[in-house]
Amino acid sequence: MKQDGPLAHLIRQLSILPGLGPRSARRAALTLISKKDDMMFPLVRALTEAAEHIKTCPVCGALDDTLPCRICSDGSRDRSVMCVVATLTDLWAIERAGGFRGIYHVLGGVLSALDGIGPDHLNLGRLEERMQDHPPREIILALPATVDGQSTAHVVMDMLGAYDLKISRLAHGMPIGGELDYLDDGTILTAFQARG
Amino acid sequence: MKQDGPLAHLIRQLSILPGLGPRSARRAALTLISKKDDMMFPLVRALTEAAEHIKTCPVCGALDDTLPCRICSDGSRDRSVMCVVATLTDLWAIERAGGFRGIYHVLGGVLSALDGIGPDHLNLGRLEERMQDHPPREIILALPATVDGQSTAHVVMDMLGAYDLKISRLAHGMPIGGELDYLDDGTILTAFQARG
Repeated sequence: MKQDGPLAHLIRQLSILPGLGPRSARRAALTLISKKDDMMFPLVRALTEAAEHIKTCPVCGALDDTLPCRICSDGSRDRSVMCVVATLTDLWAIERAGGFRGIYHVLGGVLSALDGIGPDHLNLGRLEERMQDHPPREIILALPATVDGQSTAHVVMDMLGAYDLKISRLAHGMPIGGELDYLDDGTILTAFQARG
Repeated sequence: MKQDGPLAHLIRQLSILPGLGPRSARRAALTLISKKDDMMFPLVRALTEAAEHIKTCPVCGALDDTLPCRICSDGSRDRSVMCVVATLTDLWAIERAGGFRGIYHVLGGVLSALDGIGPDHLNLGRLEERMQDHPPREIILALPATVDGQSTAHVVMDMLGAYDLKISRLAHGMPIGGELDYLDDGTILTAFQARG
């Protein structure tokens, strides 16, 4: 394979997608080329359409093709409970789980010294504005149970300390269906401490 | 997430790529949308360019942006040894390994009753034509060590039986660096039988 031809170029562009390594990028490129009408042209159309229509919601920071996004403009959602998530995929995961009927705020990531992501890179200013405009009764921090996620949670809690609202975090513990034998020590210890 | 918006549509198109499931398709779509200039538009350009320029080599069945492909038109390759592979990724794997300086024939897959792939779906007619036009001295069958791969090898060997040439297959056995304890029984038995 020539290193600078259109095929190598396509493979390179595919391989920088999260979740695709060089090997799966090669397979994806070949599949796309061998199924131009069924896969490649529809993908090009879907990409072009998404680039054109998908915008960032000015209220919560989610992506959608309506502004404000569907959840922010849904009158049936409970505006007194706001869930702060790191990414849109986390928001989707909570929506898939069902049960939460409040509104969201999407930070767009977590603080990361390693990746050079500081508080200025996150959607924090807009969160503070929302506290002043329409303060909710409760904030639920649904941030990843990682070191970066938890330090982000601390920063958000510090920032929200000035406001009169309840701040809660998702519980840590054993996943449903989890076997003790397969759990890491940190989760087991946390589950012990949070027993009740 | 709305099920029929441009974002859902993009995720669906990405999730049918080999190697991308629904979860990684969601992450890939979000990454693409949040990095339009760095990732999305270059990907659209790469796809469009590949769709335009990449063709199937009329000699061997590989894909390339020159016709015949680079290997078929490379005068320094040994035309007396032809390696039959299932897919272009297999060809690339052999090229990466180095050491083989002959030419190739790409079948475009293996026979599969399950996927409804019969001999007519493979690039077999062209292989027979090549036997008549410029018969090589040796054919190396480098087909997958799977049931489908080996039944394809049998069909190719049957077809080539009429020609005066040496037919060989890649050896089966322990991979280099492989530990016996981690090998499947089939590989261990094959390695025993092929010991020498």
